[in-house]
Amino acid sequence: MTHSPLGLAVPTDPADPLHAFGSEERSGVYRAIHERRDMRHFSGGVVADEVLLRLLRAAHHAPSVGLMQPWRFIRVRSCELRTNIHALVEQERVMTARALKEREDEFMKLKVQGVLDAAELLVVALPPGREAHVFGRRTLPEMDLASAACAIQNLWLAARAEGLGMGWVSIFDPEQLTQLLAMPEGSKPIAVLCLGPVAEFYAQPMLQQEHWASRAPLGEMLFEDSWGEPMGIAGSCA
Amino acid sequence: MTHSPLGLAVPTDPADPLHAFGSEERSGVYRAIHERRDMRHFSGGVVADEVLLRLLRAAHHAPSVGLMQPWRFIRVRSCELRTNIHALVEQERVMTARALKEREDEFMKLKVQGVLDAAELLVVALPPGREAHVFGRRTLPEMDLASAACAIQNLWLAARAEGLGMGWVSIFDPEQLTQLLAMPEGSKPIAVLCLGPVAEFYAQPMLQQEHWASRAPLGEMLFEDSWGEPMGIAGSCA
Repeated sequence: MTHSPLGLAVPTDPADPLHAFGSEERSGVYRAIHERRDMRHFSGGVVADEVLLRLLRAAHHAPSVGLMQPWRFIRVRSCELRTNIHALVEQERVMTARALKEREDEFMKLKVQGVLDAAELLVVALPPGREAHVFGRRTLPEMDLASAACAIQNLWLAARAEGLGMGWVSIFDPEQLTQLLAMPEGSKPIAVLCLGPVAEFYAQPMLQQEHWASRAPLGEMLFEDSWGEPMGIAGSCA
Repeated sequence: MTHSPLGLAVPTDPADPLHAFGSEERSGVYRAIHERRDMRHFSGGVVADEVLLRLLRAAHHAPSVGLMQPWRFIRVRSCELRTNIHALVEQERVMTARALKEREDEFMKLKVQGVLDAAELLVVALPPGREAHVFGRRTLPEMDLASAACAIQNLWLAARAEGLGMGWVSIFDPEQLTQLLAMPEGSKPIAVLCLGPVAEFYAQPMLQQEHWASRAPLGEMLFEDSWGEPMGIAGSCA
């Protein structure tokens, strides 16, 4: 293992030399994963159509349960619509702050300015008619959302590789957003994505920089055979 | 744009030259996204601890709503436990087939052998106590699952870059799996991940190769300002 200037472990020996990517391509995947940030600060600008298209194609190549592809992307071009979506987010921001009680003031300091400032605004929604898809969902119907989240993560990582920032805003009333976008019954918005050029990427997750929360030690996430039993390899990971 | 041997569009001009990755690293991100497959066929072997650890670290660097990090990974080492999980999956496979009615026989031909054959079996679960996290979840409580799905997608893409296959199995009864793993009340398993060496990666999604479903044209996924209104750039995408 060698280390990049950012302190990331860059793998030198792939797990399967036959099927593995070359070291530069492999490094790109780990860089995107480790340097992706949930961005709140954008610097305007534009995203060229061909770039947006390859990001959306990346999203569309996500895994989906039973190949149901339960994702739809609504590009917000209308300024009025963007203003209305921003108002929805602001309204829910106040409601969330109240629900957080003692952390209300702290929460209110975290702005969601990206909804107005980002070059592109995309709403991601689950389509209607999902109940027809039973494959992999009979006992876990929420796998449609899981698939759509994978699509968003693809978009996010591709955007990072392109040098673009993205933020996933889930602070809105889904019913009201459904109305703003004339969405059909049975569909559901799950994300307002702010996408575009940024002045710089946060060195740490923004919520960690702002002391809202910290990344947990990896070892605490890892069990073996039974809940709470430490994973054999977990001792070596900070 | 140039094209790789697999017909993938490889971007030559990044969106933001200042923050973008170099072309090889960028290409790695797109390759992982486009060549990742939901694998059902594994060739045994092993995953070295250090490789597993960097895959789990990649998962742990996923975005999460309010930085709640709602993911736990249980590595299944016990052969008896693996056998029991396979039995759970087989049981639900029969139940799902029945629920599919006219596609029952077709569905039963799709085996889930990976649960027995993959080098590693990992169960991913949401931890208890998630109701304490209100940030970004007051109106969309299911964002915890969305975050955990992003973690799984990170793991999947990193595994592809390492040359390892992965499959996400959601065909199981979550209550019974909870008992097998002695999981606490309030936690929930969302995935049985099969991970390890494979003889080859499918050229197309396995469910497409098996004629279960096909990838939809990207244009059908893209709207502008209002549901059903075609996205301005969508005309150029097949």
